[in-house]
Amino acid sequence: MTETRYDVVGIGNAIVDVLAHAEDAFLQEHGLAKGTMTLIDAETADRVYASMGPAVECSGGSAANTIAALASLGGRAAFVGKVRDDQLGAIFRHDIQTLGVAFNTAPAADGAPTARCLIVVTPDAQRTMQTYLGACVDLGPDDIDPDVIAAAGITYLEGYLWDPPHAKAAFVKAAQAAHQADRMVSLSLSDSFCVDRHRADFLDLVNHHVDVLFANEEEITSLYEVDSFDEALQHVRHHCQVAALTRSDKGSVVVSGDEVHVIDAAPVARVEDTTGAGDAYAGGFLHGLTRGADLAACARMGGVCAAEVISHFGARPEVPLSDLVAHEFT
Amino acid sequence: MTETRYDVVGIGNAIVDVLAHAEDAFLQEHGLAKGTMTLIDAETADRVYASMGPAVECSGGSAANTIAALASLGGRAAFVGKVRDDQLGAIFRHDIQTLGVAFNTAPAADGAPTARCLIVVTPDAQRTMQTYLGACVDLGPDDIDPDVIAAAGITYLEGYLWDPPHAKAAFVKAAQAAHQADRMVSLSLSDSFCVDRHRADFLDLVNHHVDVLFANEEEITSLYEVDSFDEALQHVRHHCQVAALTRSDKGSVVVSGDEVHVIDAAPVARVEDTTGAGDAYAGGFLHGLTRGADLAACARMGGVCAAEVISHFGARPEVPLSDLVAHEFT
Repeated sequence: MTETRYDVVGIGNAIVDVLAHAEDAFLQEHGLAKGTMTLIDAETADRVYASMGPAVECSGGSAANTIAALASLGGRAAFVGKVRDDQLGAIFRHDIQTLGVAFNTAPAADGAPTARCLIVVTPDAQRTMQTYLGACVDLGPDDIDPDVIAAAGITYLEGYLWDPPHAKAAFVKAAQAAHQADRMVSLSLSDSFCVDRHRADFLDLVNHHVDVLFANEEEITSLYEVDSFDEALQHVRHHCQVAALTRSDKGSVVVSGDEVHVIDAAPVARVEDTTGAGDAYAGGFLHGLTRGADLAACARMGGVCAAEVISHFGARPEVPLSDLVAHEFT
Repeated sequence: MTETRYDVVGIGNAIVDVLAHAEDAFLQEHGLAKGTMTLIDAETADRVYASMGPAVECSGGSAANTIAALASLGGRAAFVGKVRDDQLGAIFRHDIQTLGVAFNTAPAADGAPTARCLIVVTPDAQRTMQTYLGACVDLGPDDIDPDVIAAAGITYLEGYLWDPPHAKAAFVKAAQAAHQADRMVSLSLSDSFCVDRHRADFLDLVNHHVDVLFANEEEITSLYEVDSFDEALQHVRHHCQVAALTRSDKGSVVVSGDEVHVIDAAPVARVEDTTGAGDAYAGGFLHGLTRGADLAACARMGGVCAAEVISHFGARPEVPLSDLVAHEFT
């Protein structure tokens, strides 16, 4: 197997987050389930945005957040995702490239604008998301360069890619290219409603194509349509090489064959905004994995990254994550 | 004198802030004086942005921040400023309108894009700003509706308006309309380098046209070309009806004729980012003034608003300021 040029290449929806504080009543008015992601069209996006208070814009996207965390840890990373050639697209490109991430997906020159995720953060620090996919619907297999995939130790994919119409074909092409090059494929289940929309496909992926699976408690119990975390754990444990299951303030559970680790959550002085917690966890975990850390250390690193991201508003780290996990490598 | 429809109408550059953390070395590389604002062209803006790390975007602009603070306190406000009809312009419009501020300046349909202020925050929480004025250069006297000015108790103007070519004429038209309607005119000196660029004009304004002046220590000593705060204080005290002079962690000094108040700064647990401190102070002070508070209470309210804004990243309040100053009105 040849040397890798990237530790991880992430493929996902390229999204700019629009974050605002809101009361719980906002969720009721808009018929939203707290903590979930809903897909919306352009018209709804305009209406919801108009009803939101003053907001802050920052680059987001689930896999992109994971890649940003990994780069912030010092990992070598690439990202594939579709923006439009507009102002928000330029912001997305700037934020990921200035982290040292290779991002060479050509922007769409026409069609829908760069994707936006309207995020309201309620006083309990929970985030509820409404995504207008915009230019993301143009991501397709032509955007996947098999040489880039073959040059990365791990290809990381977000389950949300099953939502836009052509991204699934890009996803499959990337997974095949990775396995042909003897590389690993990693998937995040993204969201319990996303699992609901695509359960059969996700079960097939987990059973046959995914080496490293990330899911939170809601997602993994939804996948197997079971009531308890432990039942889901028994289902998943022999299906992927590694499954990292996150449980919010209960920490995470990692299973790999007969190996099982139950890791406590990293301490957080005050949880401000849970946006991006799972994404950051995956970034920390994958960084550990590519650096040869054992699975317990990978889980601890994921936890430390998630703790940083939930301690402030916004989904990406505010400080270099490498400063926070240095002790895991000494 | 007829009833007012607005407590304050603000006129200023309509700007979206692009905020990133940076080390002091960044300032040296770009030849920047810490804590100041430099005007840059489009090309420089692109170059500086490319050299900045991942950033957060939020609405800014000095007078606009002041108006946002005033609206957050429950004040009735309007804003006049020029954006382009682009994505950043839509963000600016959204953020100010959702605070309940009347903002009816027509966006430019062509020409330069919406203005951006590239702000780097160094580890000492100081902000250093580089502004690409973009569409702001199109603001002119036609954008001033004398009826709106006459309907506002106070017309508030930022000194930065002296930078774009036609805004000065808009400024003069607004000040005249205000005085014709027996309303007050308020000015912020904005920045010591801005005072340097326009000293003769600013002296004339302060001596003959401004009722309520806001300046920090660097600006007021620059205006009178004196070495000490006390010398500047002696110069200014009989020239404006009210002068509110801010001194960072030393609080503020307010003079009005023979009346003088020396008010301590409001406590801040941890200063994260000083962007917008002076703007928020002016918002709190003006709100007090329009509600009939005495000058010492106005200064305390300004201090409380500034303390909120410097306790987090970004120039606008994260919580309703009305919650923080309620005790001043009981």
